Amino acid sequence: MNFAIKKVTDVFNQQIQATIDGKTKPLGALGQLEDTAKIIAAVQLSTVNTGQQSLSIKHPSLFIFAGDHGVAAQGVSIAPSEVTSQMVANFASGGAAINVFCKQLGWQLSVVDAGVLSPTDNCLGVINQRLGNITAPLNIAPAMSLAQVELGFEKATALVKSVHEKGCNLIAFGEMGIGNTTSAAAIMAAIIGIPASECVGRGTGVSDEIVKIKQQVIEQALELHQGNLNSAKEILASLGGFEIVQITAAMLAAAEQEMLVVVDGFICTAAAMLAIDINANVKDYMIFAHCSGEQGHQKMLSHLQVKPLLNLGLRLGEGTGAALALPLIQAAAAFYNDMASFTQAQVTDVTDANNNKVEN
Amino acid sequence: MNFAIKKVTDVFNQQIQATIDGKTKPLGALGQLEDTAKIIAAVQLSTVNTGQQSLSIKHPSLFIFAGDHGVAAQGVSIAPSEVTSQMVANFASGGAAINVFCKQLGWQLSVVDAGVLSPTDNCLGVINQRLGNITAPLNIAPAMSLAQVELGFEKATALVKSVHEKGCNLIAFGEMGIGNTTSAAAIMAAIIGIPASECVGRGTGVSDEIVKIKQQVIEQALELHQGNLNSAKEILASLGGFEIVQITAAMLAAAEQEMLVVVDGFICTAAAMLAIDINANVKDYMIFAHCSGEQGHQKMLSHLQVKPLLNLGLRLGEGTGAALALPLIQAAAAFYNDMASFTQAQVTDVTDANNNKVEN
Repeated sequence: MNFAIKKVTDVFNQQIQATIDGKTKPLGALGQLEDTAKIIAAVQLSTVNTGQQSLSIKHPSLFIFAGDHGVAAQGVSIAPSEVTSQMVANFASGGAAINVFCKQLGWQLSVVDAGVLSPTDNCLGVINQRLGNITAPLNIAPAMSLAQVELGFEKATALVKSVHEKGCNLIAFGEMGIGNTTSAAAIMAAIIGIPASECVGRGTGVSDEIVKIKQQVIEQALELHQGNLNSAKEILASLGGFEIVQITAAMLAAAEQEMLVVVDGFICTAAAMLAIDINANVKDYMIFAHCSGEQGHQKMLSHLQVKPLLNLGLRLGEGTGAALALPLIQAAAAFYNDMASFTQAQVTDVTDANNNKVEN
Repeated sequence: MNFAIKKVTDVFNQQIQATIDGKTKPLGALGQLEDTAKIIAAVQLSTVNTGQQSLSIKHPSLFIFAGDHGVAAQGVSIAPSEVTSQMVANFASGGAAINVFCKQLGWQLSVVDAGVLSPTDNCLGVINQRLGNITAPLNIAPAMSLAQVELGFEKATALVKSVHEKGCNLIAFGEMGIGNTTSAAAIMAAIIGIPASECVGRGTGVSDEIVKIKQQVIEQALELHQGNLNSAKEILASLGGFEIVQITAAMLAAAEQEMLVVVDGFICTAAAMLAIDINANVKDYMIFAHCSGEQGHQKMLSHLQVKPLLNLGLRLGEGTGAALALPLIQAAAAFYNDMASFTQAQVTDVTDANNNKVEN
């Protein structure tokens, strides 16, 4: 599968900057909200509403992809794989953190079974996009086949297209999968090319001992698959998870549909790195929501040279960081659209601190 | 004026922690949202709804206090004092950043003329609580009299009582006042007892040269008023602003009414330090919204040993940081109220990473 993602043009950059600087506030005083407004404006002016001024966030939709990881049985996690399916049931019945935040903040939430151990067919509303029951342990065998990766790309792309057709122009992804911080750390090590020790962390709260096991497992996996890490899809087949495959593809598909993509924490940023590896244009559509408490996440964000909006020490996954960033993204669009300009408000514009230039 | 602020009890701390830890998430995985939930719960369980489980954020209200500063004419600011009144008019007609954010996020916004240069009587809806037209330049004379401080305390207290009577239980304050970062930096230096150079910053965007003048002006002021900085009210009279006086009192009055107080940026944190100096119990009711781009702000927050929710590089004032934190505060209350427990959701609880204890 290929993705035809339009490069976001810089033709409107000056116009966008002038709009922001004309608002009744000191230059740059809205900090990262200004950076966020520039991302939204660049995407929307250069694609969907060519040259139009007004920004919009329509039908924000969040998809949680859940998948189980064979590596969980290798001693890298405190929770058994069964918890993944249990949490899918919890999502389906509305009791998880992501349910609460989506309801509060106005996200349309959907849950996707990308391949979890116990069937979730009896869970109301869960979308079946299963690629298997559980991946193979990545330190012993390839996590999945390249055919499974391709199938995941197809399923995720179709899903994103369907939500785009319903009018959504901003999408976020979350994940659930016992063992998936190990998979994401392995992907990180493979892509950035740094030792496993710099990539592993406590996940949802493991001990020092387990951190050491995670590191060894990743080292084994990188050794085992060293000839099969030459492309993003090979990395996914060797080290990935069913949910990570589908999130990677969904990010690419969303950018192809000219939607904004809100990137959640450690696992989703691993998927984002893979997506960028496949088509670098996807990065122009991405808003990085938060820096998680997982130790490798800040390193991923630095590698990508991005600064996320939130830094709340979250380490829950589920897309919770992405969900919580929505009001800030909406605030960025709102100030861009609705704040008065100096001229409109008849406020003295003192735009240049060094020259003391006063435009009145 | 005295404030009878109830010390928030720690009797319910264990119950609160157990509620949070029982939710379907790893221990501590919601990071600072958990800390915020604990503040809300501690206030509401120990005061308004003694022992009740459910938290509530009712009629969140944000008051912008505007005041002019004589020190603005001493070369510390790039904008003339007239801009304060112009911005009050902008607030009144809905064109400022704070209007946009309050509308988007559900705050009831009110604008208070605490004493600005040009009359704002023709601005619809602006509350007249004027203590004068402009303060005296703090490096030449006391900014105001102790009688003006007392009058400001009375007016602000009455205002907060009236909004509490309308059912509001969470309040935030913003400010507008050309020159007020100089006043706040002087207050900071006086309270913490550190040199002016560690307190001054670029405000809304002044040059290196102006930063140097600000520093000198503050040094002159601290020298001039050295015998009259023995209490918060003396500091306010010597170095304060009409808006800072009223925000200080409003914070104390809000805590007296058992309301939560959301603390905005540099100026409002200076007011918070004064309020804490007057009655330390007020701190239990405070949620610190953000760390601003103003260089002294992080130092203030460290001095108070608090970690704010946001760090977006904002340096606008108006209460914008406080406004933007509301969804996170609501999210903290929402997860506390609405997330399922492990028992409710029949999810395996793996609470102790080090012992690998599994409760099923």
